[in-house]
Amino acid sequence: MTRSLTREDCLALDAVDPLAACRARFRLADSLNYLDGNSLGVLPAATPQRLSQVIAQEWGEGLIKSWNAAGWIDAPQRVGDKIGRLIGAAAGQTVAADSTSINLHKALAMALSLRPERRVIVSEADNFPTDLYIAQGLIAQLGGRHELRLLPAGASAADYQAALDDEVAVLMLSHVNYRSGAMHDLRRLTAAAQAVGALALWDLAHSAGAVPLALDEDGADFAVGCGYKYLNGGPGAPAFLYVARRWQGQAQSPLTGWFGHAQPFAFEPDYVPAPDIAQALCGTPPILSLSALEVGIEQFEGVDLAELRAKSVALCELFIALVESRLAGQGFVLASPREAARRGSQVCLQHPAAWPICQALIARGVIGDFRAPDILRVGFAPLYVRHLDVWEAVEQLVQAMDSGEWREPRFQIKNKVT
Amino acid sequence: MTRSLTREDCLALDAVDPLAACRARFRLADSLNYLDGNSLGVLPAATPQRLSQVIAQEWGEGLIKSWNAAGWIDAPQRVGDKIGRLIGAAAGQTVAADSTSINLHKALAMALSLRPERRVIVSEADNFPTDLYIAQGLIAQLGGRHELRLLPAGASAADYQAALDDEVAVLMLSHVNYRSGAMHDLRRLTAAAQAVGALALWDLAHSAGAVPLALDEDGADFAVGCGYKYLNGGPGAPAFLYVARRWQGQAQSPLTGWFGHAQPFAFEPDYVPAPDIAQALCGTPPILSLSALEVGIEQFEGVDLAELRAKSVALCELFIALVESRLAGQGFVLASPREAARRGSQVCLQHPAAWPICQALIARGVIGDFRAPDILRVGFAPLYVRHLDVWEAVEQLVQAMDSGEWREPRFQIKNKVT
Repeated sequence: MTRSLTREDCLALDAVDPLAACRARFRLADSLNYLDGNSLGVLPAATPQRLSQVIAQEWGEGLIKSWNAAGWIDAPQRVGDKIGRLIGAAAGQTVAADSTSINLHKALAMALSLRPERRVIVSEADNFPTDLYIAQGLIAQLGGRHELRLLPAGASAADYQAALDDEVAVLMLSHVNYRSGAMHDLRRLTAAAQAVGALALWDLAHSAGAVPLALDEDGADFAVGCGYKYLNGGPGAPAFLYVARRWQGQAQSPLTGWFGHAQPFAFEPDYVPAPDIAQALCGTPPILSLSALEVGIEQFEGVDLAELRAKSVALCELFIALVESRLAGQGFVLASPREAARRGSQVCLQHPAAWPICQALIARGVIGDFRAPDILRVGFAPLYVRHLDVWEAVEQLVQAMDSGEWREPRFQIKNKVT
Repeated sequence: MTRSLTREDCLALDAVDPLAACRARFRLADSLNYLDGNSLGVLPAATPQRLSQVIAQEWGEGLIKSWNAAGWIDAPQRVGDKIGRLIGAAAGQTVAADSTSINLHKALAMALSLRPERRVIVSEADNFPTDLYIAQGLIAQLGGRHELRLLPAGASAADYQAALDDEVAVLMLSHVNYRSGAMHDLRRLTAAAQAVGALALWDLAHSAGAVPLALDEDGADFAVGCGYKYLNGGPGAPAFLYVARRWQGQAQSPLTGWFGHAQPFAFEPDYVPAPDIAQALCGTPPILSLSALEVGIEQFEGVDLAELRAKSVALCELFIALVESRLAGQGFVLASPREAARRGSQVCLQHPAAWPICQALIARGVIGDFRAPDILRVGFAPLYVRHLDVWEAVEQLVQAMDSGEWREPRFQIKNKVT
């Protein structure tokens, strides 16, 4: 860019945005500039009515009959298949169920069950903490015979290749890092893991719904992801779990609840895993939350995922360019990869005063979030964030810095949830 | 009773029922006589509006701020404590989270972690299948070194006492049997387990909200239960998990997700279990489903649990008496204990044609359910079922039997979910 972008430039970009109309699918307050869809996605306009119907008609009137009549019984698979399009998974390999943490436990245990002679799980020291916690808990439960081999934050694909050997059972990585937004090369690292006989397990929490994925084509073995971020499923929405068809009925899940049984309603005394993706289920699915998740995913209908990615990249690039041009010398350091191909749909700025600056921005109606110790994180959900929003966010950040208001005591107080 | 009860007698009983007014707290269609609240509880009248508020205001407008501002972050503990009153648990020992199956896995693993030198889990062959499946899955995961010692259906308290020895780590029982409605003596069997150094883990799916419980007083170690039956939390509502305070921070859960961490939002690399009941949590809680569960539990406000139990017993006794007097010679055998003190809030009738009879009853607007191979099960949720409903149910059953309509082909077809 030879000149600085202006507000008018951003309006012009919005005017030609092929996804601009998608914004109307959501309820967005005019008073908020919401750049936290990577933490909790916004409310789809269709959700309130759909949930009213599920509650008043399906539950209230249909009652127990709705397990069949309203399709509750198949909801985990039906919703899972809809997620499948967003992650490049053919039908019958994805379920929507439980939480990301629980699904990770299942997936990691299933992967280990396929490599009983191997003892190493390779992951990233900067992985989202629950991923590491789940691995630690599973290792403890399995008697402490496994090792969690962690590479430092920012390790390259070559570093991972070097860390993979024939002791490795699973390579378990977050595709997009929750803090930095750095994105791994899923295809290359999957191949590298498999080249040494290991399996690849991907956490897609920060990519599904923002970055196109091709799990089948890239040969992924297992994947999990989150329903409440870019999928707009609502707070604590059920998560998803992908099990490549070749492992279904082969891998063993330790969470052997009745919904994972080959014949759940035969009430047989012995557990026999379903031969298909139902094996990845455990207990009775939470229908209200699942119904909201289904509506969230339906907002991607008709959306070209390449266009979605192009817009996501454009928004991130715009933000970085504006920060570089308008906030030079204010102490911000780009903590996300500069190269778009190595970045998800979020941008992280490092600043010693990230916490109070984040609070000052929130007070100005720009909702980003803080990640310890010093990261200001802004996410660009490409279905509903506009170029104008990016402009306004940087404008507010400039004003917050210029005024020095972030130094005020009211912005120093930490909340319970950051 | 010296004479047969009449419809007018039932109306008279309803007129003096101290819980009669509770029925208005629920949305009940006039066309249905719903005796399946032990499978899926009915819709509280307050739920639609509350969920609309959670969706439109808390999520739609409050967005990420609602984790603090709307109390989402504490919801598992807050809702758990409300369940606490129904199960006799002081605050800080119960969470609402995940599914019953997942919670059973946690509780059983936690119990085994406290008795590492012991290898036997005692349970009942006729336990709800998912309970046995979960035990089987956990045993397999732990290397097959544990034994699931199953007593036959209907084993007495003395039989259980005889089966308990110093090899037993856990006695894991459903308080009320899902099929027969038979109720164990929780206090006596807990003491018997502890007398040999074992722990007592109770599944309260078919008792919480219908049978008063006193977990603290009776010394229970762990308990789980279901949110979608008598608690009226909606289809697939989150379940609950009770961990006696003395085991918190001592027992190890294998499901070590971030919500169970001592400092979830410190994003520390190593898992440190919370020292309190939060240890029993794993992933992000499903707020929509949890909110509906909270409304369900609130319907017990001001309800005397002794009165609740008295009404439950009265409804069951009335049903049995009417079946005995009006359906003698029709082939029904009472499959539930005749003695009220040994029965939960449901009555099971054994009949070779239980399936088509159940279907014929449903066609007549009386919703009970079938449990393989030959059980017609009717549940009496004492918050909203009337004596009149019991009368009408038996009246319809008499008519269905007298007409022989249940022999018609249309009632023979089995649905996917029975």
